[in-house]
Amino acid sequence: MARCCFLGLGVMGAPMAGYLVKAGHDVTVWNRTTAKATAWVEAQGASSASMAETAADAVSGAEFVFSCLGDDPDVEAVYSDMMASLTPGAVVVDHTTASADLARRLYAALADKSIAFVDAPISGGQAGAEAGQLTIMCGGDEAAFESVAPVMDCYAKQMTLIGGPGAGQTAKMVNQICIAGVVQGLSEGLAFAENAGLDPAKVIEAISKGAAQSWQMENRWKTMVDGKFDYGFAVDWMRKDLRIALEEARQNGSSLPVTALVDQFYADVQVNGGKRWDTSSLITRLKR
Amino acid sequence: MARCCFLGLGVMGAPMAGYLVKAGHDVTVWNRTTAKATAWVEAQGASSASMAETAADAVSGAEFVFSCLGDDPDVEAVYSDMMASLTPGAVVVDHTTASADLARRLYAALADKSIAFVDAPISGGQAGAEAGQLTIMCGGDEAAFESVAPVMDCYAKQMTLIGGPGAGQTAKMVNQICIAGVVQGLSEGLAFAENAGLDPAKVIEAISKGAAQSWQMENRWKTMVDGKFDYGFAVDWMRKDLRIALEEARQNGSSLPVTALVDQFYADVQVNGGKRWDTSSLITRLKR
Amino acid sequence: MARCCFLGLGVMGAPMAGYLVKAGHDVTVWNRTTAKATAWVEAQGASSASMAETAADAVSGAEFVFSCLGDDPDVEAVYSDMMASLTPGAVVVDHTTASADLARRLYAALADKSIAFVDAPISGGQAGAEAGQLTIMCGGDEAAFESVAPVMDCYAKQMTLIGGPGAGQTAKMVNQICIAGVVQGLSEGLAFAENAGLDPAKVIEAISKGAAQSWQMENRWKTMVDGKFDYGFAVDWMRKDLRIALEEARQNGSSLPVTALVDQFYADVQVNGGKRWDTSSLITRLKR
Amino acid sequence: MARCCFLGLGVMGAPMAGYLVKAGHDVTVWNRTTAKATAWVEAQGASSASMAETAADAVSGAEFVFSCLGDDPDVEAVYSDMMASLTPGAVVVDHTTASADLARRLYAALADKSIAFVDAPISGGQAGAEAGQLTIMCGGDEAAFESVAPVMDCYAKQMTLIGGPGAGQTAKMVNQICIAGVVQGLSEGLAFAENAGLDPAKVIEAISKGAAQSWQMENRWKTMVDGKFDYGFAVDWMRKDLRIALEEARQNGSSLPVTALVDQFYADVQVNGGKRWDTSSLITRLKR
Ligand SMILES: NC(=O)C1=CN([C@@H]2O[C@H](COP(=O)(O)OP(=O)(O)OC[C@H]3O[C@@H](n4cnc5c(N)ncnc54)[C@H](OP(=O)(O)O)[C@@H]3O)[C@@H](O)[C@H]2O)C=CC1
Ligand SMILES: NC(=O)C1=CN([C@@H]2O[C@H](COP(=O)(O)OP(=O)(O)OC[C@H]3O[C@@H](n4cnc5c(N)ncnc54)[C@H](OP(=O)(O)O)[C@@H]3O)[C@@H](O)[C@H]2O)C=CC1
Ligand SMILES: NC(=O)C1=CN([C@@H]2O[C@H](COP(=O)(O)OP(=O)(O)OC[C@H]3O[C@@H](n4cnc5c(N)ncnc54)[C@H](OP(=O)(O)O)[C@@H]3O)[C@@H](O)[C@H]2O)C=CC1
Repeated sequence: MARCCFLGLGVMGAPMAGYLVKAGHDVTVWNRTTAKATAWVEAQGASSASMAETAADAVSGAEFVFSCLGDDPDVEAVYSDMMASLTPGAVVVDHTTASADLARRLYAALADKSIAFVDAPISGGQAGAEAGQLTIMCGGDEAAFESVAPVMDCYAKQMTLIGGPGAGQTAKMVNQICIAGVVQGLSEGLAFAENAGLDPAKVIEAISKGAAQSWQMENRWKTMVDGKFDYGFAVDWMRKDLRIALEEARQNGSSLPVTALVDQFYADVQVNGGKRWDTSSLITRLKR
Repeated sequence: MARCCFLGLGVMGAPMAGYLVKAGHDVTVWNRTTAKATAWVEAQGASSASMAETAADAVSGAEFVFSCLGDDPDVEAVYSDMMASLTPGAVVVDHTTASADLARRLYAALADKSIAFVDAPISGGQAGAEAGQLTIMCGGDEAAFESVAPVMDCYAKQMTLIGGPGAGQTAKMVNQICIAGVVQGLSEGLAFAENAGLDPAKVIEAISKGAAQSWQMENRWKTMVDGKFDYGFAVDWMRKDLRIALEEARQNGSSLPVTALVDQFYADVQVNGGKRWDTSSLITRLKR
Repeated sequence: MARCCFLGLGVMGAPMAGYLVKAGHDVTVWNRTTAKATAWVEAQGASSASMAETAADAVSGAEFVFSCLGDDPDVEAVYSDMMASLTPGAVVVDHTTASADLARRLYAALADKSIAFVDAPISGGQAGAEAGQLTIMCGGDEAAFESVAPVMDCYAKQMTLIGGPGAGQTAKMVNQICIAGVVQGLSEGLAFAENAGLDPAKVIEAISKGAAQSWQMENRWKTMVDGKFDYGFAVDWMRKDLRIALEEARQNGSSLPVTALVDQFYADVQVNGGKRWDTSSLITRLKR
Repeated sequence: MARCCFLGLGVMGAPMAGYLVKAGHDVTVWNRTTAKATAWVEAQGASSASMAETAADAVSGAEFVFSCLGDDPDVEAVYSDMMASLTPGAVVVDHTTASADLARRLYAALADKSIAFVDAPISGGQAGAEAGQLTIMCGGDEAAFESVAPVMDCYAKQMTLIGGPGAGQTAKMVNQICIAGVVQGLSEGLAFAENAGLDPAKVIEAISKGAAQSWQMENRWKTMVDGKFDYGFAVDWMRKDLRIALEEARQNGSSLPVTALVDQFYADVQVNGGKRWDTSSLITRLKR
């Protein structure tokens, strides 16, 4: 069993860290808001679960350090606090959805200290985290990936080493880009169906096995039609992720017309009160 | 067994009419270009398969009349030639992807003669037609649908009565609207992945089970990456279908921003030589 | 002085026909809704102004026939009623914004009868019509244009023969395409300025002499900021014109991404009650 | 006459600094690439024009400090080098097009030292700089603006104090947002005209006095049709400016759909070799 550290006990991080405990690891956690760390330790009810006062204390002595924070500046802040306390030979894994540039910079900075870094953004949502069924897209060295994969396995449905440093983040961007198009297309289709007076259930029954099918269609059509968005992956997070993808596209010379447009449509949703609504709330712009 | 007539032996119509023969029906076909009808009759090698010189001759005496033509004006032309020869009590089924307005007009015109009309556009592509595995979206009366469904069953994977006259066409529009968003999102994602230097196979492996998943992703990512588009559903047909959807949207008050945009992107593909390429060729606009 | 006929006494046609009277011509008008024709004749108070019961009566004997109707089907209906009554040698000028296809068809049909046809859509709005200061974009033969230009001069600020039949309509499409981009850009700029807490008057003062300048900026910024749209060129008309342009683009292989998008944005405005608002009401979509 | 300092002798800065000399001021310049500073001093041929080795040296003792650099990081780098050397009571004016956030931060940091800061992005292009005919959009305190306005007057056509710190930058963003829509609309219109076989000169003659008119139409239609883009405001600069505007929009809750889309279209132009082409090169995407 390994000595693990988990930084960031948010919606995603808390259950992930819990799975590490269940898998038998020694887990020290840290969270900016201490109350969450206290509650987490209590909820585990295991002597192998403990908390530290600072991120630096939390990582000291850990073989595997995991983080799941918010955005680039958050990762930069926490890492600058704790990097000096990392143990050479450790493997650091960042599950935050952040920029590939940051991942490459952290990889390089840690490599200088003989510490491995793997960027490892996740998908699967809160439900996936709670069920220990996340998809993990990794970027970094194969050796580091191989050593940490058996540990992450406890909360993963699937783990893929996509390529070198930053590749995990870039793959996650591809994911979000694809979702932007799918959700907008589905939103237009469903709103059109309603405006045309069709029974959406029958339309979905007819088209959901063919070329128009998508995970979003199967899993979201009903809630989109019913206007239920108080769950899932928040619009604010989605805009963060699309911003990161659009910035990366500036650098790699990609043109993302619909992604950029849908990102602006999400601005409408935010202004209409949807900052915390699920990404499928794009349809609200189109409903009368 | 029923007396059937099939008008239009194109890519889709020819195999569909063939399945009617295989199912044991008496089938009389007509095609504007006579050579296709001759070839089709020969290929069936069955005395129950015959051809007529005119559409009017073909439909005379038929209990079930099927058509699978190109666009609204084509349907209008053929129907105006043959409508006077239809037998009262017959059920007429149009498999063409055409406007809902036309379907409603034909329904009304035929109802006056005690003839039922079902608009029944299909999806599944050439492969689906050849395998007898089409999805059929129907609009019209329940009685007519019930009487013709057992006959269409021979080339159907799924048949749904969506609603009254025009509802089949409108459902097909929903299908095409959804596809427009999906394919553009996927195109942007894949082109971005390539520009970022990622191995697309690994990216797809990582993301194709989650929230970004789509039929298009599973069935088209490889050919999109490889630049193979000489198959499938042609861009020219797609633009026809999107035009029909956009016109319907004008009437029912829907806003289809990404559908309209993607339709214009297909104009780029057409100009670049892609009129007959598969719809997934949207990605060619984004490749360097 | 010439024997003129004017068909269609709407917002534009009525004042235009009035200018013909003022210029000393004999003018016979016809309008579908008779009351408008009666009122128009009364308002002229001149024996040279008269009305006819039918379009056919109105055109009979006229040297110059002008029409200013709604959309393609309207022109087709009126022309099919009156074409047989036209006098060989007459010049027929259609001021309706309609399709270039229709213009080419009418040109050809009339040419067979030795009647000239000029498509001559106008711009300048209600204000331009009332001031006799319209811009007229013409398509047709030079001889016909030369003969009718001195007559149209009474309500024109500028008349240009752009090219052969249909070229007037196509030039008008270019006009509307340019406007779509300008108005949306201006809307985004002004809404952004307000969201940023800037005084729009100062911003406009600063930027309205340079590279961002436009007629729309100079003439509409204030009413856009004030939310006043009960005047000008109606959204419903704009959508008709954009539809015509988008259809022409399908034929000539143009890609009009922003035009298509803005057309959909106008659908939002229509649904929000703006069918009769001025085109500058695009900004309402962006205001909180 | 005042003691002035000018930092950044690029395409814009060099002629601007020259006008300060011509107006009789004492001007010390600094440029990262020293050769440009040397050449500039020589070209002035006046004892009132001198250069310094470092930015810190250049600003020391100056009453008015002007900068015209590239992007946010450039301004941050130069200002962090020279800020400690500024004289209390000085007025610092940044002509760079940069973020409003940076302007607000610099304003606050300098205010602590009793130094005034005015963000003062410019428009008018290279031609405007060389002719001393720039439009200057200012943000900051009225007193500072009033004191520096008579100095800037030598290279200005127009100076407007839009509002408090950052307001100059935000006004410039409005300018660029409006341009994005105008240029794309014009591009679509001109490409459509060519595809329709129209003579663009005649079309422009007909439409350039009315509601479709814009500075871009009047000044760029010919070069756009001729495909000449080796002058003007570079696409790379435009993308920088649009990026800044889109980031600001994230913060102030604006939705900029067409701006975001056009920004992506510029990515196409960059990939096609147009990084240094004029912004009007958007039309190249649409030409066959
Ligand atoms: N929610 C979802 O469905 C999914 C989320 N993600 C990604 O996972 C990441 C985490 O998401 P989620 O758990 O939902 O977010 P939460 O907001 O629930 O949690 C964020 C965590 O990061 C910590 N944090 C944020 N900023 C800082 C900072 N500056 N310094 C220290 N700690 C900080 C928070 O601490 P504190 O408790 O003190 O606020 C909290 O522990 C994000 O990058 C998100 O995009 C990926 C897939 C799905
Ligand atoms: N191909 C596909 O993957 C799919 C197609 N569809 C839809 O099915 C319909 C048929 O498609 P498909 O079979 O591929 O097309 P084809 O072009 O292969 O066949 C069209 C058929 O219609 C006939 N036709 C067209 N215009 C006329 C006319 N004016 N008068 C008489 N006959 C006419 C043609 O006759 P002739 O042989 O003389 O040209 C031909 O038989 C279309 O509406 C299409 O959108 C729907 C789903 C998938
Ligand atoms: N060009 C135009 O038409 C217009 C430009 N603008 C804006 O004006 C600004 C300047 O544009 P322009 O003059 O054309 O640009 P140039 O590239 O010609 O000049 C940039 C200047 O900034 C200096 N510079 C850039 N980065 C740094 C750095 N990190 N440290 C020190 N010096 C630096 C350069 O120094 P060096 O010589 O060493 O490279 C050069 O003097 C930009 O913000 C642009 O967006 C605004 C309106 C019109």
